[in-house]
Amino acid sequence: MTKIEKIVLSYSGGLDTSIILKWLQETYGCQVVTFTADLGQGEELEPARAKAEMSGVEDIRIVDLREEFVRDFVFPMLRANTLYEGQYLLGSSIARPLIAKHLVGIAREVGADAVAHGATGKGNDQVRFELAVNALDPSLKVIAPWRQWNIRSRMQLLEYAEQHHILVPSDKRGEAPFSIDANLLHTSTEGKILENPAEVAPDHVYQRTVDPVDAPNTPEVITIGFERGDPVSVNGKAMTPAALLTKLNGLGGRHGVGRLDLVENRFIGMKSRGIYETPGGTILLAAHRGIESITLDRAAAHLKDEIMPRYAELIYNGFWFAPEREMLQALIDQSQAFVSGEVAIRLYKGSASVISRTSPCSLYSADLVTFEESAIAYDHHDAEGFIRLNGLRLRRWAARNGR
Amino acid sequence: MTKIEKIVLSYSGGLDTSIILKWLQETYGCQVVTFTADLGQGEELEPARAKAEMSGVEDIRIVDLREEFVRDFVFPMLRANTLYEGQYLLGSSIARPLIAKHLVGIAREVGADAVAHGATGKGNDQVRFELAVNALDPSLKVIAPWRQWNIRSRMQLLEYAEQHHILVPSDKRGEAPFSIDANLLHTSTEGKILENPAEVAPDHVYQRTVDPVDAPNTPEVITIGFERGDPVSVNGKAMTPAALLTKLNGLGGRHGVGRLDLVENRFIGMKSRGIYETPGGTILLAAHRGIESITLDRAAAHLKDEIMPRYAELIYNGFWFAPEREMLQALIDQSQAFVSGEVAIRLYKGSASVISRTSPCSLYSADLVTFEESAIAYDHHDAEGFIRLNGLRLRRWAARNGR
Amino acid sequence: MTKIEKIVLSYSGGLDTSIILKWLQETYGCQVVTFTADLGQGEELEPARAKAEMSGVEDIRIVDLREEFVRDFVFPMLRANTLYEGQYLLGSSIARPLIAKHLVGIAREVGADAVAHGATGKGNDQVRFELAVNALDPSLKVIAPWRQWNIRSRMQLLEYAEQHHILVPSDKRGEAPFSIDANLLHTSTEGKILENPAEVAPDHVYQRTVDPVDAPNTPEVITIGFERGDPVSVNGKAMTPAALLTKLNGLGGRHGVGRLDLVENRFIGMKSRGIYETPGGTILLAAHRGIESITLDRAAAHLKDEIMPRYAELIYNGFWFAPEREMLQALIDQSQAFVSGEVAIRLYKGSASVISRTSPCSLYSADLVTFEESAIAYDHHDAEGFIRLNGLRLRRWAARNGR
Amino acid sequence: MTKIEKIVLSYSGGLDTSIILKWLQETYGCQVVTFTADLGQGEELEPARAKAEMSGVEDIRIVDLREEFVRDFVFPMLRANTLYEGQYLLGSSIARPLIAKHLVGIAREVGADAVAHGATGKGNDQVRFELAVNALDPSLKVIAPWRQWNIRSRMQLLEYAEQHHILVPSDKRGEAPFSIDANLLHTSTEGKILENPAEVAPDHVYQRTVDPVDAPNTPEVITIGFERGDPVSVNGKAMTPAALLTKLNGLGGRHGVGRLDLVENRFIGMKSRGIYETPGGTILLAAHRGIESITLDRAAAHLKDEIMPRYAELIYNGFWFAPEREMLQALIDQSQAFVSGEVAIRLYKGSASVISRTSPCSLYSADLVTFEESAIAYDHHDAEGFIRLNGLRLRRWAARNGR
Repeated sequence: MTKIEKIVLSYSGGLDTSIILKWLQETYGCQVVTFTADLGQGEELEPARAKAEMSGVEDIRIVDLREEFVRDFVFPMLRANTLYEGQYLLGSSIARPLIAKHLVGIAREVGADAVAHGATGKGNDQVRFELAVNALDPSLKVIAPWRQWNIRSRMQLLEYAEQHHILVPSDKRGEAPFSIDANLLHTSTEGKILENPAEVAPDHVYQRTVDPVDAPNTPEVITIGFERGDPVSVNGKAMTPAALLTKLNGLGGRHGVGRLDLVENRFIGMKSRGIYETPGGTILLAAHRGIESITLDRAAAHLKDEIMPRYAELIYNGFWFAPEREMLQALIDQSQAFVSGEVAIRLYKGSASVISRTSPCSLYSADLVTFEESAIAYDHHDAEGFIRLNGLRLRRWAARNGR
Repeated sequence: MTKIEKIVLSYSGGLDTSIILKWLQETYGCQVVTFTADLGQGEELEPARAKAEMSGVEDIRIVDLREEFVRDFVFPMLRANTLYEGQYLLGSSIARPLIAKHLVGIAREVGADAVAHGATGKGNDQVRFELAVNALDPSLKVIAPWRQWNIRSRMQLLEYAEQHHILVPSDKRGEAPFSIDANLLHTSTEGKILENPAEVAPDHVYQRTVDPVDAPNTPEVITIGFERGDPVSVNGKAMTPAALLTKLNGLGGRHGVGRLDLVENRFIGMKSRGIYETPGGTILLAAHRGIESITLDRAAAHLKDEIMPRYAELIYNGFWFAPEREMLQALIDQSQAFVSGEVAIRLYKGSASVISRTSPCSLYSADLVTFEESAIAYDHHDAEGFIRLNGLRLRRWAARNGR
Repeated sequence: MTKIEKIVLSYSGGLDTSIILKWLQETYGCQVVTFTADLGQGEELEPARAKAEMSGVEDIRIVDLREEFVRDFVFPMLRANTLYEGQYLLGSSIARPLIAKHLVGIAREVGADAVAHGATGKGNDQVRFELAVNALDPSLKVIAPWRQWNIRSRMQLLEYAEQHHILVPSDKRGEAPFSIDANLLHTSTEGKILENPAEVAPDHVYQRTVDPVDAPNTPEVITIGFERGDPVSVNGKAMTPAALLTKLNGLGGRHGVGRLDLVENRFIGMKSRGIYETPGGTILLAAHRGIESITLDRAAAHLKDEIMPRYAELIYNGFWFAPEREMLQALIDQSQAFVSGEVAIRLYKGSASVISRTSPCSLYSADLVTFEESAIAYDHHDAEGFIRLNGLRLRRWAARNGR
Repeated sequence: MTKIEKIVLSYSGGLDTSIILKWLQETYGCQVVTFTADLGQGEELEPARAKAEMSGVEDIRIVDLREEFVRDFVFPMLRANTLYEGQYLLGSSIARPLIAKHLVGIAREVGADAVAHGATGKGNDQVRFELAVNALDPSLKVIAPWRQWNIRSRMQLLEYAEQHHILVPSDKRGEAPFSIDANLLHTSTEGKILENPAEVAPDHVYQRTVDPVDAPNTPEVITIGFERGDPVSVNGKAMTPAALLTKLNGLGGRHGVGRLDLVENRFIGMKSRGIYETPGGTILLAAHRGIESITLDRAAAHLKDEIMPRYAELIYNGFWFAPEREMLQALIDQSQAFVSGEVAIRLYKGSASVISRTSPCSLYSADLVTFEESAIAYDHHDAEGFIRLNGLRLRRWAARNGR
């Protein structure tokens, strides 16, 4: 094993990363710096500091990344109306490169030669962390304890904790918990009963949204303002990115918006089933499509739709910091200069529906489309020529084929 | 003007096509055969026969195309999870080539040298009808009265009717109606107040679905069975394609499922706003994605997602009978051999959500994905190599870029 | 007919545009400004001035656009390794938007309300001119005499000339000439015997390249330097874009490089056959691929290759000034920051072959690829994991399929 | 190590696989069946039998796969005009799945539980063999000695041979040879001096084609006939697939056709430089594009061009037996029904140029394209409408943008 001098660990303060912290200290016998990011996961972070201190960590970093997360990761992704496999808003995927970026930044600052993460060997997150680190600093070593140690089950994990005098919270002593990931964009839940895709997800797996059945019986209409492709206000009130997403999470969660029960394909080759709750993101996707519908040229919109699945796949697979993602981002961003205006959304019992859109940059023309006579020059004979020349190759083809 | 001997007219019996029938008879002085298709639009078709008879039509064709429509057009399109501009289920677009196919078939049968349709000069339907006719019989002339005559508004249309003693129903004498298209897949509504995309659609434009607010307060769970990519049963009961879609329209409509308020881009270059109601189709789309999620290989699924926007655009633009659509269909159909199984869907207040899926052809493996020890060989070290080689080019790239 | 006040005509001084000039003056009775661009077509332009003066034109514009043409149109297109239908370097297509840009610029400067061009009604150029004008100034009218007048053949054209006392050069009185387009990038030849795609093109249709049989019997090796995706030097000597392309045209032409005999698909629906000579462009395409081969990341290169046919189609169809072309350009340009270095090319008897490439930004690593032991860490076991996880979904798929 | 009962080895009889054979026998102590395929590599195969016998192999399989190779692998790939990274005809890539298919077939026949190959741990071939085996029989184990043993250089390999009394041919005792792969489609050469992409390849690396300088001074014109997308005759003489490719290899090689000096991107992440000679394949690619140019509809051709890079990547990366490749093949094959006719090609000093094409299924119409008056109805006013509606969205876009 290469000698490691100093490690920066992505540390939540939870059981897994506490055990990893101990294992790193024992295995490598070197200093471990902990990095705990506030991505809006809704947990107190100070307990993580206390736990790290108790484990003898001297350099403890706790950083609020919420604005950076939404501004530089969530919103750029939103510009593409991104959905993985037609449905998933990529709430976990998009957070990983941000964490990796800060792991690398701290590693450079403190002169560490390795970073470590707590992602398991069967999931996507290990790939996302490590590809991002590769792309940001190829000289850094990445340590993935879950792939290196011999712990292969929850039972073995608890045994290790016990042997090493790591406190196991009483609620974690019993049955294995769901595997949960949360941040400002979403909460995901996997494992246990959900591993059978035929089983209906029990209501208690949902944490951030009410069951639509329990949502208010009256619809609520909100407005979202956009500037150059990004949301900037809710109900006419300007907000920072993180504040805006937080606001929409509250509104969406209350109305049961953004639940998704999905079987998806992992990059490493297996299918997995997850429950996602993305209240604010779901509203924003609808709103962004709504404002684009009146401000984006047809060919621009269709080109975006065609490259979107690829773009989503890249983010899902961990290629955020990769030249091909940056190229697609350049294409997407190029299209957003006039995507400004306001959209009204109706929230009701799990749905977020666009019901109105206005824009100073609108391409929509009622004069052009109306069934009635209009001021704008539209010559019906143009359609004749348009159709005849679009059909020219088809007429040749049909005549040749002898239909 | 070329001499026309006989025309087959796509005829609904409504005011517009009644006027067109008269205009064709007068303008071309030749026999006009009327063709009225039952696509499940929910209207009595026998009145059309009476009206055609009164107008002196000798050859009147009324054909029930519902099963052909769903089996040969709707279902193949569904296999691709087709959405135009991310949202529209193409209910109008997919019906046009079928009508054109029968217009051409009848024209050949009766020896007509032209077909005629009542689509206006600003819409997509004229393109769809005419490209399909071009591709099916390039020798046939297509007559589009709305582009040829001088009538340019509703007022002028009513004047023409009056001059030619065509009965105008009293409900059509007043304000112009919405422009409506209906068939087994959907009902679309355009025009009037909807021409302002900022105006919220009034509730009375919806005809086939209840407002989610008025839908039952209790969710309903249904199951849909699939075989080789196509739906074949509802709640365990086998059904023909049209019967199945009719059944789902009833269920979806009752629960307010399938409403869409959209500003879309027409092929001929303008934006238009429409209200769509596609209750059964919306359920089927969710269900089809659900069954694919456990039966389709990842790369197959992603390839389908990538070509889908193009495929949708082709159908929307009227290129159903075109080599490129047939090529994409071959690709899509190739993927569906094992897309069989059953999906459970929860209908509630406007939503149709997949909650369970089972299949004898499932690719899902709980053993492979579980967090716990499992019987299936999965070597965590494989992930190490997988990530390292996926990252190899990124490490080179980063080192070169000097980040 | 709308009253036109002033027209800017794209004017070559040749027979066709001289007739068009006369026809515009007669038909519209207004001032016509002529615009003649030097795109390196290899003709004297001063005779055009004399002819325009003789026709009573008061405002005559002759502009040298060679550097702008190569720098802002040819090189950006080259960055994408652009080929239409796998073979055509788009020499005509890429010149049209530039001419349109200047037509519009002059129209605004002189207060004209229309622009006119001499492209025929069956070709691509009419589309390219007019879409570019539409996109640059939608208020300008476009006049296309070939679509408006009654002249429908060469004979009628000569008759019109005679009637209007327009001098017909003696070499144009006899048999119709080939239809030729030339600029710094290429010369294209169409028409006459070439209209039969089975006929071998006679040698005299080639104007800019020698027959490879007559090219030197000794290969010549040249080097081309690139910076950030664009060529900047030949044989170590820095050159401006137009000078560089001129130099390569000389070298390529001498070695018979860049001939293409192609049947292509026009945007308006028919197939046509053309002979293209693109000596310098052919060398540059090979050289650009050569320098990219060592400086571009794999995924970046593959993404470029995948979008290239679409990008080429847009340029061919006349959508240079369109949002979707600009979006693709943003993607392409994003990839070129490190595409710098030098490529050696062997010219011989019609071929231009890359034989060597060097770059300060190379991503190539001999250490990584060598069959022998090397200093760079490459663990053969990584390949094991890489393959096993890439194969995981295939093993599941195969087991399911029961092969 | 899992107990292995019987192994089928892909065996050439050369030094590497002879050593591997010995290593397998020693390491696994089980029966090894050798499989030697005749893919037209131009070597005697009977010596392989003798060597295998001397090594104690009891079950020796030598199979002539030339017709299957060309008919079921090369020709389907050719239908897509396949080029990897714009240039490489995939001569090695396309042979691997065929070999894997027969390895699996023999393994099943003889009851083997593993297959073995001699591909190294840094190349693409290991991936191609193993993914194909995964997809054809996921129960088979794959043994890749180059990744498992400790031999890491040529010197160590020779030492192993000496220790195990394996005869090393005298010409292999000295300097390391180039790494060569040959079959009916191509010969590739890598390694040694070629590992420096700046070094010009010395002439002696070429084995199958003459230097264009040494090729005949007189061009030779040949004709190739196609039926439904596949070549079926040369100079009017019908031939089987392998005979046809063999014939064209002779013609092309004599004229120096098909040389390529390329730096390419391997799937496993590094760049490598190779010299390829693909004489017959290069001619066929030009000929296939030539026949498609008059028989394929524009949109069909463009769709093929757009998916081609992806298809090529899949083959290069080893995903021949994968659902996504089969889907793309279905799309491609769907387009070829009318790709029949004859193409004339001029071979001269390294070039293969289409000079004429004819087809009973031609879509080309001289009447339609001619500059002169023609019998076919083409209304120049159609172009007006076509352009105006194609430009409609651009005029709106430009007006909005305020250019």
